[in-house]
Amino acid sequence: MYEQWEGFAGGNWQREVDVRNFIQKNYTPYDGDEAFLAGPTETTKELWAQVMDLFQKEREAGGVLDMDTREPSTITSHAAGYLDKDKETIVGFQTDKPLKRAFHPYGGIRIAMGACRDNGYEVDPEMVDFFTKHRKTHNDGVFDAYTPEIRACRSNHIITGLPDGYGRGRIIGDYRRVALYGVNFLIKDKEAQKASTPHVMTEDTIREREELSEQIKALKALIELGKIYGCDISVPAKNVQEAIQWTYFGYLAAVKEQNGAAMSLGRTSTFIDIYAERDLKNGTFTEEQIQEFVDHFIMKLRMVKFARTPEYNALFTGDPQWVTESIGGVGIDGRHMVTKMSFRYLHTLENLGTAPEPNLTVLWSTRLPVSFKKYCAKISIISSSVQYENDDLMRVTHGDDYAIACCVSSMRVGKEMQFFGARANLAKCLLYAINGGVDENTRKQVGPKYRPITSEYLDYDEVRAAYSDMMQWLAGVYVNALNIIHYMHDKYCYERLQMALHDRKVTRWFATGIAGLSVVADSLSAIKYAKVKTVRDETGIVTDYIVEGDFPKYGNDDDRVDLIAADIVKEFMTYIRQQYTYRGGIPTTSILTITSNVVYGKNTGSTPDGRKGGVPFAPGANPMHKRDSHGAVASLASVAKIPFKEAQDGISNTFSIIPDALGKNYTVSTSDLDVDLDLKLE
Amino acid sequence: MYEQWEGFAGGNWQREVDVRNFIQKNYTPYDGDEAFLAGPTETTKELWAQVMDLFQKEREAGGVLDMDTREPSTITSHAAGYLDKDKETIVGFQTDKPLKRAFHPYGGIRIAMGACRDNGYEVDPEMVDFFTKHRKTHNDGVFDAYTPEIRACRSNHIITGLPDGYGRGRIIGDYRRVALYGVNFLIKDKEAQKASTPHVMTEDTIREREELSEQIKALKALIELGKIYGCDISVPAKNVQEAIQWTYFGYLAAVKEQNGAAMSLGRTSTFIDIYAERDLKNGTFTEEQIQEFVDHFIMKLRMVKFARTPEYNALFTGDPQWVTESIGGVGIDGRHMVTKMSFRYLHTLENLGTAPEPNLTVLWSTRLPVSFKKYCAKISIISSSVQYENDDLMRVTHGDDYAIACCVSSMRVGKEMQFFGARANLAKCLLYAINGGVDENTRKQVGPKYRPITSEYLDYDEVRAAYSDMMQWLAGVYVNALNIIHYMHDKYCYERLQMALHDRKVTRWFATGIAGLSVVADSLSAIKYAKVKTVRDETGIVTDYIVEGDFPKYGNDDDRVDLIAADIVKEFMTYIRQQYTYRGGIPTTSILTITSNVVYGKNTGSTPDGRKGGVPFAPGANPMHKRDSHGAVASLASVAKIPFKEAQDGISNTFSIIPDALGKNYTVSTSDLDVDLDLKLE
Repeated sequence: MYEQWEGFAGGNWQREVDVRNFIQKNYTPYDGDEAFLAGPTETTKELWAQVMDLFQKEREAGGVLDMDTREPSTITSHAAGYLDKDKETIVGFQTDKPLKRAFHPYGGIRIAMGACRDNGYEVDPEMVDFFTKHRKTHNDGVFDAYTPEIRACRSNHIITGLPDGYGRGRIIGDYRRVALYGVNFLIKDKEAQKASTPHVMTEDTIREREELSEQIKALKALIELGKIYGCDISVPAKNVQEAIQWTYFGYLAAVKEQNGAAMSLGRTSTFIDIYAERDLKNGTFTEEQIQEFVDHFIMKLRMVKFARTPEYNALFTGDPQWVTESIGGVGIDGRHMVTKMSFRYLHTLENLGTAPEPNLTVLWSTRLPVSFKKYCAKISIISSSVQYENDDLMRVTHGDDYAIACCVSSMRVGKEMQFFGARANLAKCLLYAINGGVDENTRKQVGPKYRPITSEYLDYDEVRAAYSDMMQWLAGVYVNALNIIHYMHDKYCYERLQMALHDRKVTRWFATGIAGLSVVADSLSAIKYAKVKTVRDETGIVTDYIVEGDFPKYGNDDDRVDLIAADIVKEFMTYIRQQYTYRGGIPTTSILTITSNVVYGKNTGSTPDGRKGGVPFAPGANPMHKRDSHGAVASLASVAKIPFKEAQDGISNTFSIIPDALGKNYTVSTSDLDVDLDLKLE
Repeated sequence: MYEQWEGFAGGNWQREVDVRNFIQKNYTPYDGDEAFLAGPTETTKELWAQVMDLFQKEREAGGVLDMDTREPSTITSHAAGYLDKDKETIVGFQTDKPLKRAFHPYGGIRIAMGACRDNGYEVDPEMVDFFTKHRKTHNDGVFDAYTPEIRACRSNHIITGLPDGYGRGRIIGDYRRVALYGVNFLIKDKEAQKASTPHVMTEDTIREREELSEQIKALKALIELGKIYGCDISVPAKNVQEAIQWTYFGYLAAVKEQNGAAMSLGRTSTFIDIYAERDLKNGTFTEEQIQEFVDHFIMKLRMVKFARTPEYNALFTGDPQWVTESIGGVGIDGRHMVTKMSFRYLHTLENLGTAPEPNLTVLWSTRLPVSFKKYCAKISIISSSVQYENDDLMRVTHGDDYAIACCVSSMRVGKEMQFFGARANLAKCLLYAINGGVDENTRKQVGPKYRPITSEYLDYDEVRAAYSDMMQWLAGVYVNALNIIHYMHDKYCYERLQMALHDRKVTRWFATGIAGLSVVADSLSAIKYAKVKTVRDETGIVTDYIVEGDFPKYGNDDDRVDLIAADIVKEFMTYIRQQYTYRGGIPTTSILTITSNVVYGKNTGSTPDGRKGGVPFAPGANPMHKRDSHGAVASLASVAKIPFKEAQDGISNTFSIIPDALGKNYTVSTSDLDVDLDLKLE
């Protein structure tokens, strides 16, 4: 029993690490409106002006302001960094200076060098030498084990975006634990876990014991990180400022250790609110002060940056971090989980202006309080920066303490993690089925030498059967590649701090992904319902398709094609489930390309739906652009037929509507032109 | 078909890596005497004088002449080093200077620092920093996974000498392959192996693929090592000088990468002789030249040194390398395998004078030619430096291309390796059985809290049953520790070059070891046949034993006690075999402490045989000093009852006789005082 816990309702959370229990026992649902919110303080305005100035300078410098080229980033590698030490109420940067990008060689020294070089920096030659000769990296390990077949699939873009040259990310440490328990408590917990491993030293047990040791070391380093900034985080946070700061230190340590593609924050707002409510009641802080802490916290999250390579930026379009924070949702006891802090987080989009990061994600339910729904709509219109996910669907399988990693991947915080798996290009796979495994662009034999389709006009049953064979092959190569990647990531780039903020028993989702689904559905529909004539080159390879007649198109609530899409997802997932997966990972898939669909389309030849070679795919599970001609509801209905249980890592639909469609009750501060609203439907 | 192979009889060895086949098809058994041998050349004398001078300087400097404190040793880490470039016919040192000890941090940075500090050197702080923060070592990994129980067993010396702070060694690369095939051929072979791994990427397959990749990289580095010394070893050796040089480069690369406790050479002499015979026939070289190559080769092997810690030196007494070369033996086709080269190797003990390294080991058979037997006896008397092992016994299980690693561990060259496992102290285990798991020296509860023996006089059946329980416990902890050690050695200190000179399918012997066997046998005999009274301290712990009456003692060909020894070995081995072993290692045990028996005895309290606390154990399977009172034959007969199939890693017996016992046919150049003859009986 810590004195910092005084005033909280007790429960199992006091006896063992159980943040959910703490939240459920203590949070105060808020049904009111946004009237209580405070604007930005002068300090906040001054600091944010500094940040905006730094962002401007960063853009002027070509995208990067400064880089560390010598000191590999660890939890304690850098001295304290500040914007203005006296004004910041929440402190901590990835390095010793704001926006100075850290040097992350564990994932791959050549990639770290490439990231530096692209920005006009050179990694210290001694470090290059060391990481080349003596300290193997994730990237080196992966390429040592890759088969020629995997490499061919990768270079021919039928499997793309694999996290073999960047951190896999998609792991959310339960950073709230740092605030609630203090690090000493967490170390003791991990030591007890280590003491309770099985007696026989099998490889699994040895690995577990080593990982627990590494986690304990990371937690000890986390205490040091606190000290660097003058905070004693070995003990619990005593007020809302410390709760935010302690939580942020947990997250900061994670982004110092790892440069994963998606370093998401979790589900912190309702947790933090409990401290705010206590402080308000005790008169410790005012609403203005609390909002200032939140604003400064969000400001810090907006400044999380990594050094990336041009290839990475091409794939992910720009410099996204996916610092996703999940807000709201409904508890399994029926109470909604919206608190004042849910408002305060969204309010930062007003106080600091709009920004894509952190990726504020509302866990949407029909049962959210109407005042919050309205505030969400208002902020969405103002900022174009709110993501929505279907809590009513995810709560069924994930309960009420899950969060979103990246854009759609749901996981119970501190209890589940994901082996991220990028995507298989199912549209290209269809072309391989037609061309007997030969890539339509490179003309290389990439897939197995199955019989190609030799007819002039494509026969649905023949193509469909060949497609099944080719998908089955693809699933095997794909999961093999992922097994290698995750084995090597664990070996050379283990997320020790993030895993230290997990339970001992972790469920691992073995995530795969699908690209080009609507292209496949439409292509098969065209073959079935119209006539598709092949155009072949002199070697017999089909290089183009001529569609004669009309056919049902995915996105119009037409079962004839929508069910093809649903069946393909189910079938591919069946093949994925047939594979051996590393560490007992549970296979899932996602349909969620939000930006990379452009690159996938670029590398895929013409398809039987009439799409020409190089034309972008639709994002995620979206219908192809302009083919959803029966209105928004029909389009959404088609997407909704994709079975969530077969694509449990998430199905994304990017949906644009004009503000007028939301009504005229809110003042729209942006222009009245198209506003992107990212609606993610699970 | 290489031109370097001209004149050799063809066979399967030309189609795949099969050195044994090459030897069997080509070697020339030699039945003559030593008359053909050549003395040292002037060059040899000059070089050896230089070496002796360096050895002298090394002793004067306190044991170490120079140390590298900055550049971690790799195959290519150092420039060429010479004694006298123009005079040396066989070249290559571990670093860029003779006797300059290399820096080996992969096994453990603190150990490398300790080795330096002990000799007045300091490891470069940047290297310490790097290997502490970014490049984990074998030692770090092991201690991350060790259980408190293992640590207690280790610090209380019931399990001792574990290779968790030094390289495990006991792996013999088939260095002959470098000479016969050239490295390019070996790389192609490894690439083909990598292409033939199973399709499903399980952890085992991923590890195998990564290891094969590392092996290929090591082979490429080996070619570079040749280039550093101006040799193109990518192609086969074309004469005996190159055959020795290429073979030595293979070995040199191994000792540059690894500082294992025993870095043995293998079985090279008969292989090398094939080249010598061809060169003699072709007039390429004279006998004098060939002996000069051999002398220079052996000279190099005598200069192999590692940086060791005081603890290591205490355990192993001095600075042994166990550069064991196995000579002679008989083929499974019945032909003996003695060649002129067997004589030439032993002859170095005359040309260069005596030396403990390389550890020249004769694979003894009753069927060796008499002239060779006589020459062995002569050289043994002159040099006290020849080891003998029982080929007639080992040939049954190991065929005719095995070699000895360290002192007694037999393995097929390039086909088998050993996970070295040091020793369990079975004498201390008996004391734990009596004291209910409490250590008699430290008074700590180390073993399980079994009921102690509480009677004043020990009852044989009661003690024997308690001993079985305690041995069973010890076997479990011991194998757990070894599983951790070998997992981590593979992970952080993999012997990539040595394993590159192995077949793909390698049999792994999971070696354990026994210390204190004769103490246990005599103790149980005393309890059974005499009366043993316990002396207890105030807490009831037995601290001493009073033996009343006489009892049969191991070493006198008396089955009453000898069979107790044999039974204990068999029983302990049964418990070892019940354990899970890492990587499918096949359990073996050895009874072979040659020097460390002193340390084991020092840490073991008084025993029921009347031995006082701290008194050294007998070495290996030897009877306790002076207890074998029935003559040499009876003593040897007792040892011979230990079943080899239960102690397949070897049973050693250190046996001293006066020269007169060998007859008077040879001139003895040393004094007529006691000459140690290491007779190892398997």
